[in-house]
Amino acid sequence: MKRDLEGESCGDRSSYVSTVRVRYAETDQGGVAYHSNYLHWFEVGRTEMMRELGYPYADVERVEGVLLTVVEAHLQYHRPAFYDEVLRIESQVSDVRRVRSRIDTLVRRDTDGELLCSGHVWLASVNRSGGVVRLPSGLHAALLAARPKVETQEEGKTDPAGIV
Amino acid sequence: MKRDLEGESCGDRSSYVSTVRVRYAETDQGGVAYHSNYLHWFEVGRTEMMRELGYPYADVERVEGVLLTVVEAHLQYHRPAFYDEVLRIESQVSDVRRVRSRIDTLVRRDTDGELLCSGHVWLASVNRSGGVVRLPSGLHAALLAARPKVETQEEGKTDPAGIV
Amino acid sequence: MKRDLEGESCGDRSSYVSTVRVRYAETDQGGVAYHSNYLHWFEVGRTEMMRELGYPYADVERVEGVLLTVVEAHLQYHRPAFYDEVLRIESQVSDVRRVRSRIDTLVRRDTDGELLCSGHVWLASVNRSGGVVRLPSGLHAALLAARPKVETQEEGKTDPAGIV
Amino acid sequence: MKRDLEGESCGDRSSYVSTVRVRYAETDQGGVAYHSNYLHWFEVGRTEMMRELGYPYADVERVEGVLLTVVEAHLQYHRPAFYDEVLRIESQVSDVRRVRSRIDTLVRRDTDGELLCSGHVWLASVNRSGGVVRLPSGLHAALLAARPKVETQEEGKTDPAGIV
Repeated sequence: MKRDLEGESCGDRSSYVSTVRVRYAETDQGGVAYHSNYLHWFEVGRTEMMRELGYPYADVERVEGVLLTVVEAHLQYHRPAFYDEVLRIESQVSDVRRVRSRIDTLVRRDTDGELLCSGHVWLASVNRSGGVVRLPSGLHAALLAARPKVETQEEGKTDPAGIV
Repeated sequence: MKRDLEGESCGDRSSYVSTVRVRYAETDQGGVAYHSNYLHWFEVGRTEMMRELGYPYADVERVEGVLLTVVEAHLQYHRPAFYDEVLRIESQVSDVRRVRSRIDTLVRRDTDGELLCSGHVWLASVNRSGGVVRLPSGLHAALLAARPKVETQEEGKTDPAGIV
Repeated sequence: MKRDLEGESCGDRSSYVSTVRVRYAETDQGGVAYHSNYLHWFEVGRTEMMRELGYPYADVERVEGVLLTVVEAHLQYHRPAFYDEVLRIESQVSDVRRVRSRIDTLVRRDTDGELLCSGHVWLASVNRSGGVVRLPSGLHAALLAARPKVETQEEGKTDPAGIV
Repeated sequence: MKRDLEGESCGDRSSYVSTVRVRYAETDQGGVAYHSNYLHWFEVGRTEMMRELGYPYADVERVEGVLLTVVEAHLQYHRPAFYDEVLRIESQVSDVRRVRSRIDTLVRRDTDGELLCSGHVWLASVNRSGGVVRLPSGLHAALLAARPKVETQEEGKTDPAGIV
């Protein structure tokens, strides 16, 4: 029933991987990484993914004048991350529509692959004044192509009718 | 079907209100408050709520040795928050179990009440070594009493069987 | 020899006071507020000071198109700040030139006035493209007027020759 | 007269280099990296330096029970850092005493070496209860050995009389 990420779902070739190391500034007095930092690491993950896809986000914003703004975020915290640990961020395009797209992300402890956090964000493309716009067509195609190759139900998920 | 917060549901006496002002440090180059800051503001909201309930979180951690760690977070971003705006944070206890409890939070623009973000976190009580423990009984009772007084379905939500 | 702030120097009428409460997100695993947060609190302090002076920083940026960018910062940490403590931020204009101005700031524990951190920033006024510009004249006058009334050496400090 | 870092002084073999990439979360609405983030990058720089010296800070804290707390920080901002730029952090031990040590840090744009920020922090070694303690002897020796090999005035800077 839960349609949240399973640890395995990001393990294939359509998952883009980057790493970060937990900074002291990111810990809290509970002795672990504070929970908001995962949103920063999700951002690092999708930034590197977009670079690999040929659409560095800096260019999308500067050249195309389009911002991908986070309109929804969901995070499940499975185990804590500790200071100085290397984390592996696995990002995956899971849904692409005309305006919105969804990026699923897993954060793992790099040494043993233990899953620390799973979640996703929905991004909406907007212009500089905050108005909703369509995803630039090149980026739209690249994101579509980056989705994992699963047999079923993908048609429905890409929302061919163009609902936001 | 979505059981997310409706703007109205936090408007009654069981909603605890505090305010913050958006800092320059919290903005990003898109000209709005960066999306991770809402988790900080959610934290401010439930901190002030717990103080009002007579269980300041600092005491829970120091005196009882219990940490309330965020195990799940969900946020929907409706409109951007801008630099120097005063935000009104409305927090509400929406579910209380033996170990976990859920806090729903709305963030509104203070001047006109416009809803900017809605979401919730699930908190789990753990001890200093990270082991799951029951909520301290006094706090458990206070949280139960803080829930909004709605006629129906509350029994089910409080999970009398004590499932985590 | 050190020309750093003395605790007393900010106690007169020319000191602008605001308060913050230490957030859990601002602590680190050492059990105290992480040292970079003081720069955020300095910012809160001078934001409130400018509002009191009649020049809310948001307006300076939006209406006048001038940004006051930090070009130098110095901080001395005397004692740690702990989670949930209320801090008193005392800000004072200590030098005003044509482009640059210096704001001295003290951060005290609110309960007993204990000095936790003292420091200053130098702000330079720049336009949207990062070019150095003169302080808007109204703001320049307001900052000059806000300096503490000390008999000596003020002339020299205001740099009448207009050196940056 | 200024005894701040010169860009050149960190270029020799005694300078420890690491890199970071500016995150969107680290920008502000002025379109540049917010000034407090440099303290995080300074921290990254000295963390990697200590790892290279054979004293990973995580071990110092966990094994030796000693915290190196920032007691003073100074930063000069020369040019802004922009989103997605790679920054090169050059860290250097510039003074080592029984309790305190000083780390000088330069932050450069990686593509062309342009100096963006220079500064230093003074670290004091304290125990878990915040009491001042001597630097662990192994770490003390490693830091001494890591200082740049300059002919003059080093004796004075190491403070042989052991003043804090």
